[in-house]
Amino acid sequence: MTDTIAAVATAMTASGIGIIRISGPDSRKIVGKIYCSKNGKKRIEEVPSHTINYGFICDGKETIDEVLIMVMDGPRSYTGEDTVEIDCHGGVLAMKRVLETVVKYGARPAEPGEFSKRAFLNGRMDLSQAEAVIDIINAQNEYALKSSLGQLRGNIQRVIKEIRERIIYQIAYIESALDDPEHISIDGYGEELKKEVDNLLLKLEGLLQTVREGKLMKEGIKTVIVGKPNAGKSSLLNTLVGEERAIVTDIAGTTRDVLEETIVLHGISLRMLDTAGIRSTEDVVEKIGVKKAVESAKDADLILYVVDSSVPLDENDEEIMGILQDKRAIVILNKADLQQVVTEEDLRKKTDHPIVTISAREEEGIDLLEQQIKKLFFEGELSFNDEIYITNVRHKAALDEAEKSLELVKNSIEMQMPEDFFSIDLMNAYEALGSIIGESVGEDLVNEIFSKFCTGK
Amino acid sequence: MTDTIAAVATAMTASGIGIIRISGPDSRKIVGKIYCSKNGKKRIEEVPSHTINYGFICDGKETIDEVLIMVMDGPRSYTGEDTVEIDCHGGVLAMKRVLETVVKYGARPAEPGEFSKRAFLNGRMDLSQAEAVIDIINAQNEYALKSSLGQLRGNIQRVIKEIRERIIYQIAYIESALDDPEHISIDGYGEELKKEVDNLLLKLEGLLQTVREGKLMKEGIKTVIVGKPNAGKSSLLNTLVGEERAIVTDIAGTTRDVLEETIVLHGISLRMLDTAGIRSTEDVVEKIGVKKAVESAKDADLILYVVDSSVPLDENDEEIMGILQDKRAIVILNKADLQQVVTEEDLRKKTDHPIVTISAREEEGIDLLEQQIKKLFFEGELSFNDEIYITNVRHKAALDEAEKSLELVKNSIEMQMPEDFFSIDLMNAYEALGSIIGESVGEDLVNEIFSKFCTGK
Repeated sequence: MTDTIAAVATAMTASGIGIIRISGPDSRKIVGKIYCSKNGKKRIEEVPSHTINYGFICDGKETIDEVLIMVMDGPRSYTGEDTVEIDCHGGVLAMKRVLETVVKYGARPAEPGEFSKRAFLNGRMDLSQAEAVIDIINAQNEYALKSSLGQLRGNIQRVIKEIRERIIYQIAYIESALDDPEHISIDGYGEELKKEVDNLLLKLEGLLQTVREGKLMKEGIKTVIVGKPNAGKSSLLNTLVGEERAIVTDIAGTTRDVLEETIVLHGISLRMLDTAGIRSTEDVVEKIGVKKAVESAKDADLILYVVDSSVPLDENDEEIMGILQDKRAIVILNKADLQQVVTEEDLRKKTDHPIVTISAREEEGIDLLEQQIKKLFFEGELSFNDEIYITNVRHKAALDEAEKSLELVKNSIEMQMPEDFFSIDLMNAYEALGSIIGESVGEDLVNEIFSKFCTGK
Repeated sequence: MTDTIAAVATAMTASGIGIIRISGPDSRKIVGKIYCSKNGKKRIEEVPSHTINYGFICDGKETIDEVLIMVMDGPRSYTGEDTVEIDCHGGVLAMKRVLETVVKYGARPAEPGEFSKRAFLNGRMDLSQAEAVIDIINAQNEYALKSSLGQLRGNIQRVIKEIRERIIYQIAYIESALDDPEHISIDGYGEELKKEVDNLLLKLEGLLQTVREGKLMKEGIKTVIVGKPNAGKSSLLNTLVGEERAIVTDIAGTTRDVLEETIVLHGISLRMLDTAGIRSTEDVVEKIGVKKAVESAKDADLILYVVDSSVPLDENDEEIMGILQDKRAIVILNKADLQQVVTEEDLRKKTDHPIVTISAREEEGIDLLEQQIKKLFFEGELSFNDEIYITNVRHKAALDEAEKSLELVKNSIEMQMPEDFFSIDLMNAYEALGSIIGESVGEDLVNEIFSKFCTGK
């Protein structure tokens, strides 16, 4: 890992500024060869670290672009290595030419993620933090962004490290006792370990309980709007889309006529699945509302069931409400601006789902709907100070494995197996958790056992 | 212009790094309010200029993103004002949130081009340089990039300034002489002025002669491939497109079936116009090759006429060559890898256009074709050291106007009009040229007359 890598760090699209990032021992040397300051005297090799230097990138006599050179010596850089960033004009060709020149003078084009990989390998961040970088960049809503930022700042690392330390302590204790039974007693240790394992399992379960929320935060809540024709489904969708059109994307789905629109309501992404069928319900028979509800309910996280409060309920409504029974759903009593024939009380007799009265046309009640969605999915507690949300599938799998291993430890204790059986499963849990933060096990164990427990021995 | 502006300076697309640029007197103060360093002690208001500072953007207790803060105090900044750039994660939402926070704490969202406008208004660059920034960003080929870079570095500014200085000298002389006839003689001045105007006209014409090349550089050479069916037009296009696919774009044209592909051959853009008709010529009658040639020849910069060297020439070829007569064209003798029935000598008897023998299939001779194109359009002299190319329509119009005004001066001299008639047209030329670099006339004139000529008076 002694070579110097380079890549365009901004998007390859015409814009004001482009950045070419260079990392490795020769960063200054390479840029030094192609940098000309205005008076021709300044040398990149000699400027202080963490300074900004104006000038030109030149290939021999040819000027490539006018630039700012940002010098950041390791370890105080993203990768931990000597780093130089070239801010050039944000034209596709300009960025390309600057990168080509950097490569010509000795840098190697970086592979995807190679800067973050180096940051990880150089101990600037653990695996969970490196993964957070990608999640921040891809964050589609406020909460996903905050959750990833927390992860980047090390909140997952901290909790995982704490649990691992407590596990390694037990492993080390067992190993030491087995090694040196004269001095370290193992009597009654099983009970003690069981207590500790129970505590650790509680911690793991706490983390695993955030997986559902984490997934919804990261990927958005898959939402379907159902209801009889003319209940105001399209109006609701339009109102929601119009409101806070923070990030609205149109993604052509796999099915030809299904469009997905992502709406961000106060930091929560709703992935609204809209079908051509629903859009044109006014042309078709009443029954279609029910059919759509059945189909959509299958794998939706949330069903918004729109009821027209100005017309009486009928057997179609009854049927839809039946379908929603064991689903996460909100009943929306629409057309509050018209004369009400159906009231919240009428509906409350027929369904246990929360009911929100709105007027999609007048854009009234949308706030209440947002509150209700938050309550339904995050128990209204999306304050995000130090909460940890597990949003990464790899982390979830590792936590599951650690949980399973700790359960096995409990089993072994209950079955009064020999102590080295405990060690094996404890180690499995320790390794599984280590994979989250990317720590190799061998080294840790060596350090832990020989430094903490057996000093002087 | 005392407010502080902010905008995302990189593309709003997910990427490694995003930049939020802030310019104006409160740049440091605003960022100071939302910056937290790692140890909480560093203050952006106090760091030295041109330094890079690691930390977080926070809105109160809420962390927005992990960032680097680049501080560049005026006048040593792009705009000439105090500037702070925030390098954040290159996620769309991350960039948006950082910008929102900057705006929340006192910056105004910048209008398009407002940073460059401020750079111009603060005298950091003239109008031609500001225009060069946009051209660099949009440059589609090497030469356009180099030409724009030269313009950014002031080559147009310098030549325009020199011409203007010589014009204002004459104006000032006339004004002074009319003001103070006792001391400044105007005898024989007409002849002297005429000589100078001739010299200036030569300069202007030199610049105007680069307009055609400049336009071709900037916009690319509109190129059409013609020839009989099966001559190898598509193979040639594919070979060209495959070769150095630096920037290849598919732009759906105005006509439904016309596609435009831009090929960059060693720094020259060829805008290849391909039509569905040409693509499917094998299905249709021979005559279509001729028809296409007639149509395409209308406004093409370059016609590439492909001849199949393995089959005899016929009346269709004769007809096409007739059409090409007063056009810029290259005859391409294709299928050099097969038994030749038609030779370069055969063709040379029938056409004055340059002939290049290639094998599109074997990708042989393409270099020769490139050389020929360069020779045809740039007389092979695209070295680009200090040459100026006029690529901007506005500049061309201004040069045309200046030229016209100087011609009027010559007329007036020849018709022995009073000297103040000269002044009026000289001033028009001066103003027209001034518009290229964005210099206001009134101030200049005042300074020139009262400082250079009439000192002590």
